[in-house]
Amino acid sequence: MAAQGDLKLLGLSVSPFVVRVRMALHMKGLSYEYIKQDLFNKSELLLKSNPVEKKVPVLIHDGKTVLDSSVIVQYIDEVWAAMGPSILPVDPYERATARFWAAYVDDKLVIPWVRSFRGKTEEEKSEWMEQTLIAVETLEGALRECSKGKGFFGGDNVGLVDVVLGSLLTWVHAAEVMSGAKMFDPAKTPLLAAWMQRFDELAAAKAVMPDVNRMVEFKTRQAQAISVAAASQRQ
Amino acid sequence: MAAQGDLKLLGLSVSPFVVRVRMALHMKGLSYEYIKQDLFNKSELLLKSNPVEKKVPVLIHDGKTVLDSSVIVQYIDEVWAAMGPSILPVDPYERATARFWAAYVDDKLVIPWVRSFRGKTEEEKSEWMEQTLIAVETLEGALRECSKGKGFFGGDNVGLVDVVLGSLLTWVHAAEVMSGAKMFDPAKTPLLAAWMQRFDELAAAKAVMPDVNRMVEFKTRQAQAISVAAASQRQ
Repeated sequence: MAAQGDLKLLGLSVSPFVVRVRMALHMKGLSYEYIKQDLFNKSELLLKSNPVEKKVPVLIHDGKTVLDSSVIVQYIDEVWAAMGPSILPVDPYERATARFWAAYVDDKLVIPWVRSFRGKTEEEKSEWMEQTLIAVETLEGALRECSKGKGFFGGDNVGLVDVVLGSLLTWVHAAEVMSGAKMFDPAKTPLLAAWMQRFDELAAAKAVMPDVNRMVEFKTRQAQAISVAAASQRQ
Repeated sequence: MAAQGDLKLLGLSVSPFVVRVRMALHMKGLSYEYIKQDLFNKSELLLKSNPVEKKVPVLIHDGKTVLDSSVIVQYIDEVWAAMGPSILPVDPYERATARFWAAYVDDKLVIPWVRSFRGKTEEEKSEWMEQTLIAVETLEGALRECSKGKGFFGGDNVGLVDVVLGSLLTWVHAAEVMSGAKMFDPAKTPLLAAWMQRFDELAAAKAVMPDVNRMVEFKTRQAQAISVAAASQRQ
């Protein structure tokens, strides 16, 4: 079994990408030093550790830097394979399926969803939101296939896709508080709605997911900043 | 050792994403049925195998479908780990580094490069080309670090990053024929320029890389189609 080693995580509490890594570390029972970053005033350590992208999460394991949330989660699963549950399945076909859907969440749900907030016009925003909801419907089908009637994308246990999609749930809850919109609507995507409840109840999720009220405050301030920036561009 | 099994690859000769998979199959000495696709008239098999994205490459292994070029390459490496060279390193830290740079090639080089052809204005095109060249410079640094003075990103052997970046070389050569632009300029990125020559000489590359002249023809027809479409939008 690999020793725990010295683990530092450079993160930001509102980032779902950081949540993924914290969740994986928690599932493996690993302790780590969490070093909060300020993205408006980037630390020397962040700039030195990730000179290419200058963003979080960054995992530093015994002085070696691992970047990109999905890559870090796989690294944690591989180094501490014998500790805690497996995040990726053992079977290569199931691993490939998990990697495909994890990438799908980032490319087809996260990117359009972020654009639906940042679009220049209402029409553009609504087109991106439509793309987001198509991805949600597709993920309902993926959950049906991958879970085989069990609770998670990983079957009985939380797997890579659960961690990647689950990391977004504080955003999902915050959006519901702010606009009333249900992204995982029980009427439209009943499996995902039930999956969300199940995920929220996990000890690992409770330990690492940011508080919804703080996320609402953050999103409100962010929306105000975007609208001020847009107004100043129009002047 | 895993048996060869029945392997079908749905592909398109000009696609670098398909080239990646063909290269991995060739490196492992696997034989497969190559089923060429027409993206303007998608086959039933393609639509059934990849209903979500309807694109190539698709690998069908004993009836099971594996999607996404990077996922497929890792699948091939894992299932036939004992056959041919390893495409991903054994060490988890080196695997993480390879996965990071492979994703970097797709996100920071391929996407801006494609946009540099499809941009609406000359200014937009030139901005995307600038992003592409920044990625090339960053990859020069990555090659210096990853290769440790040996020939490839994978060290002495071709690894995941070599396969992913190498799959683009027919595009690179075609762009040079068409515009004279050297993407891997020996004066600016000498390591990448030497790496390219080394890659072009590989038996696996010679076996699977599309012909540069055919790529030039294809790119010329594509550019004409884009310009006709743009002209009809202006009318």
